Amino acid sequence: MNHQNKNEGRYKVKEIKVGIIGFGTVGAGVADTILRNSDVIAKRTGVKPVLSGIADLDITTDRGVAVPQELLTTDGFGLIDKSDVIVELVGGTGIAKKFILTALSKGKPVVTANKALLALHGGELFAAAEASKADIYYEASVCGGIPIIKSLREGLVANRINRIYGIMNGTCNYILTRMEREGADFDPILKDAQALGYAEAEPSLDVDGFDTAHKTAILGSLAYGEWFGLDPIYIEGIRGLEQSDIKFAMELGYRIKLLAIIKQNCGDVEIRVHPTFVPKDSMLGSIMDVFNGVMVDGDAVGQTLFYGRGAGRDATASAVVADIVDVGLNLKFGSHRRVPAFRIGPQFNRLVDINEIESRYYIRIELLDKPGVVGQIATILGQKGISISNCVQRDGKTAEHVPMIIMTHKAKEGNVKEAIAEFEKLPVVYGKVKFFRIEDI
Amino acid sequence: MNHQNKNEGRYKVKEIKVGIIGFGTVGAGVADTILRNSDVIAKRTGVKPVLSGIADLDITTDRGVAVPQELLTTDGFGLIDKSDVIVELVGGTGIAKKFILTALSKGKPVVTANKALLALHGGELFAAAEASKADIYYEASVCGGIPIIKSLREGLVANRINRIYGIMNGTCNYILTRMEREGADFDPILKDAQALGYAEAEPSLDVDGFDTAHKTAILGSLAYGEWFGLDPIYIEGIRGLEQSDIKFAMELGYRIKLLAIIKQNCGDVEIRVHPTFVPKDSMLGSIMDVFNGVMVDGDAVGQTLFYGRGAGRDATASAVVADIVDVGLNLKFGSHRRVPAFRIGPQFNRLVDINEIESRYYIRIELLDKPGVVGQIATILGQKGISISNCVQRDGKTAEHVPMIIMTHKAKEGNVKEAIAEFEKLPVVYGKVKFFRIEDI
Repeated sequence: MNHQNKNEGRYKVKEIKVGIIGFGTVGAGVADTILRNSDVIAKRTGVKPVLSGIADLDITTDRGVAVPQELLTTDGFGLIDKSDVIVELVGGTGIAKKFILTALSKGKPVVTANKALLALHGGELFAAAEASKADIYYEASVCGGIPIIKSLREGLVANRINRIYGIMNGTCNYILTRMEREGADFDPILKDAQALGYAEAEPSLDVDGFDTAHKTAILGSLAYGEWFGLDPIYIEGIRGLEQSDIKFAMELGYRIKLLAIIKQNCGDVEIRVHPTFVPKDSMLGSIMDVFNGVMVDGDAVGQTLFYGRGAGRDATASAVVADIVDVGLNLKFGSHRRVPAFRIGPQFNRLVDINEIESRYYIRIELLDKPGVVGQIATILGQKGISISNCVQRDGKTAEHVPMIIMTHKAKEGNVKEAIAEFEKLPVVYGKVKFFRIEDI
Repeated sequence: MNHQNKNEGRYKVKEIKVGIIGFGTVGAGVADTILRNSDVIAKRTGVKPVLSGIADLDITTDRGVAVPQELLTTDGFGLIDKSDVIVELVGGTGIAKKFILTALSKGKPVVTANKALLALHGGELFAAAEASKADIYYEASVCGGIPIIKSLREGLVANRINRIYGIMNGTCNYILTRMEREGADFDPILKDAQALGYAEAEPSLDVDGFDTAHKTAILGSLAYGEWFGLDPIYIEGIRGLEQSDIKFAMELGYRIKLLAIIKQNCGDVEIRVHPTFVPKDSMLGSIMDVFNGVMVDGDAVGQTLFYGRGAGRDATASAVVADIVDVGLNLKFGSHRRVPAFRIGPQFNRLVDINEIESRYYIRIELLDKPGVVGQIATILGQKGISISNCVQRDGKTAEHVPMIIMTHKAKEGNVKEAIAEFEKLPVVYGKVKFFRIEDI
C-alpha cells in the first residue's frame, strides 16, 4: 500500500495551546494523551493540541508523565493568558469556579470535568460563557470516556427524548456486582472497595447517590432544555442495601442497579436516582463492575445504549481531549459557540413529584407466619388500589418471621407508601418494610 | 416553574432548506421527523430544517406522511437548486452517485445513508466534496440510529484505535437469535424472516456478509486514515450455519455472531467479517434480535460500546436529521468542512492477510469413533504448532460418526487451515471439517 500522502499540505494544521489547571490523576492523563496522540489527532482533524502549561500548587510530585519542567507552574491565573483553551481539573466548587469564570471573562474557552460544579452552578457558568462568546465543554463530567454528552446534544438531536436510564457511578456498580457475586453484605464490601481504591474514604458522594445525581442533572437538562440543578432530583443511594433483596431480585429475573431515571410522559418529566430492579438479561442489567452505561430512548431512534468506563485517568482524558479538539476546531473556523454548552428552551410541561410517579414495585415484608396474614396484606393493597403481579413467600432467617415478596403492577408511589405505613402497623409485621421500584425497560 | 423564556431572540434561528431525493421508507421517515421535531431541533441548536422538496419517480403512492403535494417532484436534479442541503436516499451505486456529484459540484452539502456507494466510491465522492468545499455526511450509513460515525470521528478522536468489533447487520443477528432460541436450522428461519419482512427476497447482501463489509470499510477507514474500500476485507457470511455449532457454542459459553473485526497490532491492521464465537455473557454477546452494536477499544478510553437499532425508518431518520443539523450549523457559522467527511492520513503500517492472522479457533470434526483417532488428530495439530485449550467429544446424530470439538489456543490461521486439510484426508474423518474464529473480547 502506498503511504505517500498526496494530500499533505492540503490541510493546514492549527496548533491549540492547552493550559491544564489541576495536575492530579486526570490532569496527568490529559497531558499524557496530548503528548502521546497529538500527531494522530492533527492528522485526523487539522487541530493539534500542544501544552502551554500545567498549573498546580504541587509541581514537584512525579505524576508519571514526562512534562518538561518549564511547563509546570503554580500560577493558574497566569496560565490562562498563555493558553488558547483552559482545562479545569481542580475539582470542587470553590477556586475551580473562579478559574473558569476568569478564563471566560477573557474570552478563553474552557473544558471541564467538574460535574459537581456544573450541577450546582451550571446556569451561572453557561451565562458567563455566553456573555463572553467563548465555549464551555464538559463531556468528561458525565460517564468519563463515554461520549454521551456529544451523542445527546448532537448525535441524537433529532429526537424528542422519552427516557434516559443511567448507571453512572462505577463505585456503586462495583459494590453491587461484588455483593451479587460473593453473596456478601454492603458494609464489608464497601470496606474492601475502600482498601482497594474503588471507593473513597468518605464514600457518601458515591454510595448515597449524589455523584449520580450531579450527572443526572446535566443529562436531564440536555434532554429537556431547562437547567434543573439538583433540587428537583429525588435521590436515594445504595447504603445499607441488604443481601436478601439482591438474591430475591436475581430469583425474579432482575438485578438491583443504582439507576438514574429521566423520563417524560405527555410533557411531564420525572428525574430521580435510586436503587432499581432492572431485568438481568437486558443490556442495562448486563453492565457490571466499574462500567457505566446510559440508555437513551428517543422518539425516532428508539432504544440506544452507550457503555464504557465512567472514570479513571485515561478514559476521562479521552473525553477531555475530544472537547479540546472541538473547541480547537471552533477556534480554527471561527465558529465559537457553534453548539452552545446548553441552550435554554424547555421541552416539557412540569416536573412530577416522587409521590406522584407510577411504577411497578417490589415490596419485602418480614412476617410472623400465621394463618390469615396474607389476607390482611392483600386487603390493604386492595384498599389502596394496588394490584399484585406476583407474590412469593420464603423460609426466613429465623423461625419467628419469614419474608413475603410482593411484585405489584403499576401503582402510584404515594399509595404504595401509604400501604406500607399500614403494613408496619400490623402486629404480624416485623421491622421496616423494604421496597424498590422496578423498571422493565 | 416559569417557562417564560427570557432568552427568546438571543439565538437567531437559521432555516435550512432540505431537499430529499428518494421517497422510500427512510425518505418518509426523514420527512416525518423534520415535520414532527423541527421546532425542538431549532430550540436546541439554532438551526431549523424545513423541507424544500422531495423527489422521486413515484410521487403518487401514499407514504403515510402529510407532505404538502407541491413539495413532491420527479425532478431530483431540479430540487438541488432549491435546497441548502441534499439528502440522498435513492440507494444503489448508479443515479445516486450522479445526484451526489451534481449537488457537490454546485457547492451543496450532501447527507447520505448509502453504505454501498460509500464503500465502493467513497474516495471519489470525498475528493469531489473537498474540491467543492461542501460537506458530505453519512452517519446513517453505519448502524442506523447509533451515532457511531460521530463518536469515532469526534467523541473518541483522542484515541488510537486498538480494536473495533461490530454486530452491524440486523437481519443476520435476527436469524442467529432465532436459530438459538428455536433450535431451528438456517434455511427455515431465513424463509420465515423473508415472509416477515426481516430479510430480503434476495438475501445475499445480508447473509453473505456484504452489507456488514460495506459498513466495515467505512469504520475501518475512519479508524485508520486510509479509504480502504472493500478489497482488503475478508468476508464470510452466515449462510448454511449449522444448528450443532450454535449449540456447542452455547455449551462452551459463547454465541455465534456475524462480527466485523477491525484491529491493529503494532501497526498491522486486520479487517474481516465472519461468523465469530463471542462470550455469551459479554456486552457484545448480549446483543440480540435485530439490534446492532459496535465496540470500540481505544488506547485512552478502553472499551466502549454503542448499541441500538441498525435499520428501520425512524432510527435511520434520526441519524440523517442529525447530519442535516451538523451541515446546517456549518452553513450558519460558515464552518464548512470543519470536520471533513474523511481526512487521509494513514495511522498503520500494513494490512494483514487472513492466513497470517492469529486467533483462537473452534474446530468441529465428525469422526468415526474408533480407538486411536484422537491421537491422530492431536498429532497433526502438534505438527502444525497448534495447541489445544479444550477438547470435547459428544454423541453424534448417527451411530457412524460423532462430533469432536477442539478449542485451540492462539494459532496462525494458515496453520489451522493446513491442519484441517490434513484432517479431511484421514479415512476416519467424515465430510468437511468446520471451524470458527473465537474472539474473547
